[in-house]
Amino acid sequence: MSTSTVSTPSLPESPDALALLPMLYVAWADGVLTPSEVDLLRARIESIDALPESVRSEVCPHLHPTRPPSPETYDRWVRILRREIERLPDDRRLSLAEVGLAVAEAGGDGAAVSPGVRDALETLEAAVGVDGPGMVREIREQRPDPDDRATRPARFDVDALTRLLDGDRHDHMQRMRTLLSDDAFSYPPPQPTAVYREQVMEWVQLLAEQGLGALAFPEEYGGGGDMGDFMATFEALAMHDQSLVVKYGVQFGLFGGSIYRLGTEKHHERYLNDVGSLELPGCFAMSELGHGSNVRDLETTATYDAETGEFVINTPSEAARKEWIGNAANHGRLAVVFAQLHTGGRHHGVHAFVVPIRTAAGDAVPDVRIEDCGEKMGLNGVDNGRLWFDDVRVPRENLLDRFGSVDADGTYHSPIPSSGRRFFTMLGTLIGGRISVARAGLMAAKSGLTIAVRYANRRRQFGPRDQAEVPLLTYRTHQRRLLPRLARTYAIHAALHDLTGTYIDRSVDEGLEDVEAAANALKSYATRHTTDTLQETREACGGQGYLRENRISTLMADTDVFTTFEGDNTVLLLQVAKGLLSDFQREFRDLNILGMVRFVAKDVIDRLSETNPLASSQTDPEHLRSTEFQQSVLEYRADRLLQTAAQRLKARLDDDVRPFDAFIDVQDHLIHLAEAHAERLVFRSFADQVEEVQDEALRNVLSRLKSLFALRAIEKDRGWFLESGVLGSSKSKAIRTEVNRLCEEVRPDAEALVDAFAIPDACLSAPIGTGERR
Amino acid sequence: MSTSTVSTPSLPESPDALALLPMLYVAWADGVLTPSEVDLLRARIESIDALPESVRSEVCPHLHPTRPPSPETYDRWVRILRREIERLPDDRRLSLAEVGLAVAEAGGDGAAVSPGVRDALETLEAAVGVDGPGMVREIREQRPDPDDRATRPARFDVDALTRLLDGDRHDHMQRMRTLLSDDAFSYPPPQPTAVYREQVMEWVQLLAEQGLGALAFPEEYGGGGDMGDFMATFEALAMHDQSLVVKYGVQFGLFGGSIYRLGTEKHHERYLNDVGSLELPGCFAMSELGHGSNVRDLETTATYDAETGEFVINTPSEAARKEWIGNAANHGRLAVVFAQLHTGGRHHGVHAFVVPIRTAAGDAVPDVRIEDCGEKMGLNGVDNGRLWFDDVRVPRENLLDRFGSVDADGTYHSPIPSSGRRFFTMLGTLIGGRISVARAGLMAAKSGLTIAVRYANRRRQFGPRDQAEVPLLTYRTHQRRLLPRLARTYAIHAALHDLTGTYIDRSVDEGLEDVEAAANALKSYATRHTTDTLQETREACGGQGYLRENRISTLMADTDVFTTFEGDNTVLLLQVAKGLLSDFQREFRDLNILGMVRFVAKDVIDRLSETNPLASSQTDPEHLRSTEFQQSVLEYRADRLLQTAAQRLKARLDDDVRPFDAFIDVQDHLIHLAEAHAERLVFRSFADQVEEVQDEALRNVLSRLKSLFALRAIEKDRGWFLESGVLGSSKSKAIRTEVNRLCEEVRPDAEALVDAFAIPDACLSAPIGTGERR
Repeated sequence: MSTSTVSTPSLPESPDALALLPMLYVAWADGVLTPSEVDLLRARIESIDALPESVRSEVCPHLHPTRPPSPETYDRWVRILRREIERLPDDRRLSLAEVGLAVAEAGGDGAAVSPGVRDALETLEAAVGVDGPGMVREIREQRPDPDDRATRPARFDVDALTRLLDGDRHDHMQRMRTLLSDDAFSYPPPQPTAVYREQVMEWVQLLAEQGLGALAFPEEYGGGGDMGDFMATFEALAMHDQSLVVKYGVQFGLFGGSIYRLGTEKHHERYLNDVGSLELPGCFAMSELGHGSNVRDLETTATYDAETGEFVINTPSEAARKEWIGNAANHGRLAVVFAQLHTGGRHHGVHAFVVPIRTAAGDAVPDVRIEDCGEKMGLNGVDNGRLWFDDVRVPRENLLDRFGSVDADGTYHSPIPSSGRRFFTMLGTLIGGRISVARAGLMAAKSGLTIAVRYANRRRQFGPRDQAEVPLLTYRTHQRRLLPRLARTYAIHAALHDLTGTYIDRSVDEGLEDVEAAANALKSYATRHTTDTLQETREACGGQGYLRENRISTLMADTDVFTTFEGDNTVLLLQVAKGLLSDFQREFRDLNILGMVRFVAKDVIDRLSETNPLASSQTDPEHLRSTEFQQSVLEYRADRLLQTAAQRLKARLDDDVRPFDAFIDVQDHLIHLAEAHAERLVFRSFADQVEEVQDEALRNVLSRLKSLFALRAIEKDRGWFLESGVLGSSKSKAIRTEVNRLCEEVRPDAEALVDAFAIPDACLSAPIGTGERR
Repeated sequence: MSTSTVSTPSLPESPDALALLPMLYVAWADGVLTPSEVDLLRARIESIDALPESVRSEVCPHLHPTRPPSPETYDRWVRILRREIERLPDDRRLSLAEVGLAVAEAGGDGAAVSPGVRDALETLEAAVGVDGPGMVREIREQRPDPDDRATRPARFDVDALTRLLDGDRHDHMQRMRTLLSDDAFSYPPPQPTAVYREQVMEWVQLLAEQGLGALAFPEEYGGGGDMGDFMATFEALAMHDQSLVVKYGVQFGLFGGSIYRLGTEKHHERYLNDVGSLELPGCFAMSELGHGSNVRDLETTATYDAETGEFVINTPSEAARKEWIGNAANHGRLAVVFAQLHTGGRHHGVHAFVVPIRTAAGDAVPDVRIEDCGEKMGLNGVDNGRLWFDDVRVPRENLLDRFGSVDADGTYHSPIPSSGRRFFTMLGTLIGGRISVARAGLMAAKSGLTIAVRYANRRRQFGPRDQAEVPLLTYRTHQRRLLPRLARTYAIHAALHDLTGTYIDRSVDEGLEDVEAAANALKSYATRHTTDTLQETREACGGQGYLRENRISTLMADTDVFTTFEGDNTVLLLQVAKGLLSDFQREFRDLNILGMVRFVAKDVIDRLSETNPLASSQTDPEHLRSTEFQQSVLEYRADRLLQTAAQRLKARLDDDVRPFDAFIDVQDHLIHLAEAHAERLVFRSFADQVEEVQDEALRNVLSRLKSLFALRAIEKDRGWFLESGVLGSSKSKAIRTEVNRLCEEVRPDAEALVDAFAIPDACLSAPIGTGERR
C-alpha cells in the first residue's frame, strides 16, 4: 500500500459521519492508530449494516495509521466535543453515542441523522469496548491521561528524563511505545523457525503500513524524508524483538538505503515506493564467506558485455558466495549485489547492482542459487541465506550509478576519480547501520537492566539475624553488578545520540572519515557493553533470569552477534587505533619521533598539572567527582597510549621488522588505545549532556551517574593508571571507595532511572511455552 | 533391566556358536558395545533363520553392554583367532566367516558345524557391514587401531597427555568417547521441547542399559560401587549434551544418591535397583521458590502423625513451592522431598522423605500439584517443574533415616546430636554434585576451545601486503583471546581432579567442611571460567560461531545457569570468604587484632623475602616463569586479602556497625579474597601436577601453560598487585610482555593441546535445522 500523504478534510461533513466524531477522538487519543485499532474499528464499522455507506467513505479516511489528524484538527475535534458535552446535562453517565448525536445535530448542515444511526452508534460503542462515559468525563474535566509512572515516588522528574533521553525524537518514540504495546506485536510462544520468520515478516508489514518503512526516503517516494526518525525507529524496535530490528534494518536501511544512496533518480522512481511499502522485499548482498571484514577485496564479479548492454554477475569461487544475507533465505526478491566491476578489460573496483533473485511466486530465478544459513544462536526470525550467481545477466541500468556509471559502449565515468575514496563513499550507508546497531544493542541492555533492577528491589534474600530478609539491591555485590553498568548505559546513550546527530547533519560530500572513526569506536564499545550487561543481568536474576519468560536470555542470544556483525569489534578497534596513529603521524610529520614524544608528553603533563598539581595523590570526594579530574585522566590515558603505541611501532620499524609483524606485536596495545579513545568520547558526550541539564534534581542524579561511569572506568583500568604513575596507591583505593559510595547513592534512584527508559511492560516478558497447569 | 553381573563362559561351546567368535571379537574390539551395535548384531542374528537356536543362546550373552569380556577372555579370543588365521593361506582376502569356520572346526568338541551355517555367517558378515578381510589382516599383523590423531605432528605425545588428563579413569573415559560417538547419541535437528525431553530420556535409558546409571551404588544393588567412575561419566557426558548431563545427574546422582546416602538398607533394597535401571524415575526436591540459596530455612513441613504412623507433607505458602525440580514436569514418579520434620510438637530440622508424585500412567497423585517451569534459555531437554504438597501422607518408613529416625510413637533419634552438623552431613550429597557441575562446565569450555582453536588455525584473514592471508591464530589479539583461557582450563582441570580424589577418599564421618569449602571456591571459579571462555570462543569464531551448527552457542545457553545452580557463585564465594575468616579468627584467637596483623604481615613478607629479595623489581623471564615466584605472589595475595578483610571488619565492628552491615560493606573485598583463594588452590594443583610429569617434552609444554596461567592471573589483577606494592611498574610491564611471549610459544602446541581433550568429532557439531538446498 502507498503511504503518500493525501489530504483529508478536518471534519466529516454529513451528520451521520459527524456523529462518529467521538469515536475518531478515541481512536487518535494517544496519537497513534495501532494495527489492532484499525482492524477493530474498520471491522465494526463495516459490520453494522445500519450505518449508511456515506459514513464509511467519510470516516474511514480518518482511520489510516499514516494520516493522523494534524494538531489543529485534533484540537478542533476536542473543542467541538467539549462544547457539546458542556451543553448536555452532567448529572448522569453520557455515552459517546449521545455526544455524537449532539455534535451531528449542532454541526451538520441542518439535516438530521438517518434513522437507525443512534442504535448503530450504541452498537459500535459496545462492540469496540471503549469506556464512553469515562472518555466523556475526561473531556469535560480536561484531565490528561493519568501516568502511572508519575505516581511512583522518585527524587526527580522521570518523564523529564525520558524526554531528555529521547531528545528531539520524543514524540516519535512515544508513538513507537504505544505501537509496540499493541496486541499485534505481542510475543508468540516459542515456535518453529519457519513460523517465527513469517511472524517477523508480518510485523515488518505492519510497520510499513504505519509508514515507518519509508521514513528515510524522500517524500516524493512515499517517504518521511527523515533519517533521524528512521534511526529512532530502529532503536525503538529493539525494545521489542531483535529479529524485527534486523529485518526492518535490512529491508529499509540496507536494501532500500543502498538504492536510495547509491542509485539515481531512475532507481528511486522504479523501486523506492515498493521498497518502503514492502511490496518488494530485498537483500543487501555484500559480505562473502571469505570476505567478512575485508569487503574491499570481495570476489564476485560484474563484467559489462557491450554487445548486449548487460552486466554478467558471477560467483567465481566458494569463498565468494554471498554469506549471511538477511532476507535471502525466504522473502527477498531483489538483491543489491556488491561486485568488482570490469568493463572493456579494466577493473573499476566494487560497485552495486540490482539483481533479481526470486520470482513473485518465491522460486529462485535461473542461475541464482540460494541456500538457508540454518538455525542460529538467536535472531531466528531473520531468514539469513547464501547466494551464488552463475553468470546472471542484468541490464545496464541495474548498476546503481550515483558514484560510477557505464555508457552503452562500456565507457566508465565517475564523479570521484580515486577508487579508494569512491569505495569509502559507497560504504557511507554502512555507517548509519553501525550506529543503529549500537543503539539497538544499548536498548537491549536497557531492557535487561530494567528487568534486573526491578527484580533486585523486590527479591529478598538473607538478612540481619532474626529480622526480615532484605532486597538484593541492598548488597554491595549486587549494586556493583548493576549500578555501574546502569551509569555506563546512560553515558553511551549520550554518545550515540551525539554521534547520530553529527551523522545526520553531515552531507556525504563533506566526508565521513571522522564520523566513521567515531562510529567504529562507539559501536565496539557499546556492543561489548551490551553483551557484558545482559550476561550480568541474567546472573543477577538467578534462576528467574534463566527462564525464557523473563526475556533476558532471548536478548542475550539475539544481541550476541552484535559484537561481530556490522564490523567485527576487534577489527574495528584496530582500525580506530590505526586511524589515530595516522592522524598523529600527519600532525607531527615534521617532527622526528623524539620530538614528537617530547611534544605530546609535555602537552599532557601540562594539562594534568594545570588541572591539579597533586593529581596523583589528591583523594577527596569533591576532587574525584569533578569532571575536570575525570576528563583529564581519561584524555591523558588515550593520548599517552597513542604516543607509546607510536614509539613502540617506530622502534620495531627501525629494527626492520615488517610493518605487518610490527602491528601484530603491538595489537594488544592498539586495542587498549582504541578502547581508551572510545571511553573518552563517551565521557565527553555524557559530561556535556549533564552540564546542560537545567533542572537541579535531575542534574544531580545524572552527575552521580557521570562520576560513577568515569570512576568505575578508571578503577577497571587501574592497573594501567598505577603503572603509568597517573594514580598513586592511595588514590586508587580512594577511587574504589568512591565507586562504592556512588553505588549506594545511586541505589534509591535506580528504579526511576530504569523507568525513564520507558520500555513498555508488554516488551519485557514473553509467554512461557510449556507451562501448562496440571 | 538389571545390570547385575552374571558370569558368562569365556567361549561359546557348540561349534556353530564358536564360528561366531570373529564377530564377537569385532563387536568388542574397542571395548565398548554401543546401543547401535547391540541392536544391529542382535537383529541380524535373530533374522537369519539358518542360524540354529543354540547359537543365539550361546552368543547373545556375550552381546550385553554391561558384560564385556574380561581382558583375559579377550586375549584368549585373539590368540585363538590369530592361530587359525596363521594356519590359513595369506595370499587372498579372508572373510570372518572362513576364519569362524576354521575356529569351529579346530576348537569344538569334534562335531562339525550345522549345514547352512557357513552361508548364514556370510550373510551376517555382509549384513553387519564389517570389513572382514581388513579385520583379519589386522589380527594377523597384530597392528593396533590406527589413531589419526597420532598422524598429526605434535611436539609432545598427545595420547600421553590425554591419559594424564583422564588419570585413573582413562579406560572409562575412552569407553565413554566410543559410546558417545555412537549413532544412538547423534544430535537431532532442532526440535520442540516436548520431543527433545523424550530424546534425552531415551539417552538416559541407554546409559542405564550400559550399566552407567548405577555406577556409584553398591554392587548388591546392580551397581559398580565406584563414585569415581560415576563422576567421570558425568564429566564425559558433558562432551555431548548438557541436558543429558543434568538429567543423568538428577536421576542417579541427586535422586538415587540421596536415597543411597541418606537412606538405610530398607530403602536401598526397595529402590536402588530400579533407580539405577531407570525403571523408577525420580526427583530431588530441595529448592523452594523463596529458598534457593538458604535451604536450611526451607518451609515445607513433614509432621508425624502417630495415630496413623504417617508423615504429612505440606507446602505452607507459595514461597515454599518446590522450584526448578529436574524430572518433575514429565518423568519423575517419586521425589526425595526435603522438609522440616516435626514430631510430638518438636522441630528437628530438615530431613528427606520419599514421596510419590506421579503414577506409572503419568498422572499426578492426589494432593500433589505439578507445574512445568516452561522454556528456559537452555537445558530444555530437562523437564524442570514445580511441586506443591497439600497434606500428602506417606508411611513412616519413607523417612530416609540414616541420620535421623522416628519411632512408631513419634520419638526422634539421631546419631548426630547437633542439628547443624546433621544438616551439613545430609548436604554431603550436594558436594559431589557441585564438583561434578564444575567438571561438566569445564568440559564444555574444552569443547568451545577445541572448536575455536581449530578454526583459528584454519581461517585466514588479512595478511602482509601482496602476500597470502594468515591464520587468525597468528594475531596477538586472537592468541590473547584463546591461549590464556586454554592454560586456565588445564589448571582448573588439575584442581578439580585433585578435589574429586579428596572427596571420594573421604568418608562422611571424617567431616567434609574443608572439601566443601574447596568445592565452593572451585565451583565458582570454574563455572565463571566456562561462561567467560565460551563467550570468547563464540566471538573468536565470528559469524560461524553464531550458527547453531557450530555448537558453541548451544553450550553457552546450556551452561549459563551453571554459575547459578548447585549454589549461586556470589553466595558461594561469600561463604568461602567467611569460612576463611572463621579459620583465621580461630587460629589467632589469643592475639589481639594488631598482633594478628603483625603476625600475618611478617609471615608473608618473610616468605616473599626468602623467595626473592628483589621480588618487586626482578623482571627476567626465568624468575617470572618460576613456580616459586608465581606461587609466592598468589599465596601472598590471598593471605594479605584475608588479613585486610579481617582488619576492615574489625574496624567496623569496633565502631558498633551491625555485623550484617559490616559484612555488606566489605563484600567486594570478600569476593576478591575468595577468588584469590580459588586461584591459589588451582595454581597449587596444577603446579604439582606439572612437576610430577616425567616426560620432558610434555613437562615443558605443561610448564609453559602453568606460567601462562599464573602470569595472566597476576596481570589481570595487576591493579591490586601494584596498589599493594607486590609489583613495581616495570615488573608489571615485564609480566605483560611475558604473557605475550608465552602465548607465542604455546601457539604451535595449541591444536595438540585441544586434541588431547579427545572430544569425539561427533560431539563437536550439530546438524543445521533449516539448511535445505533449493
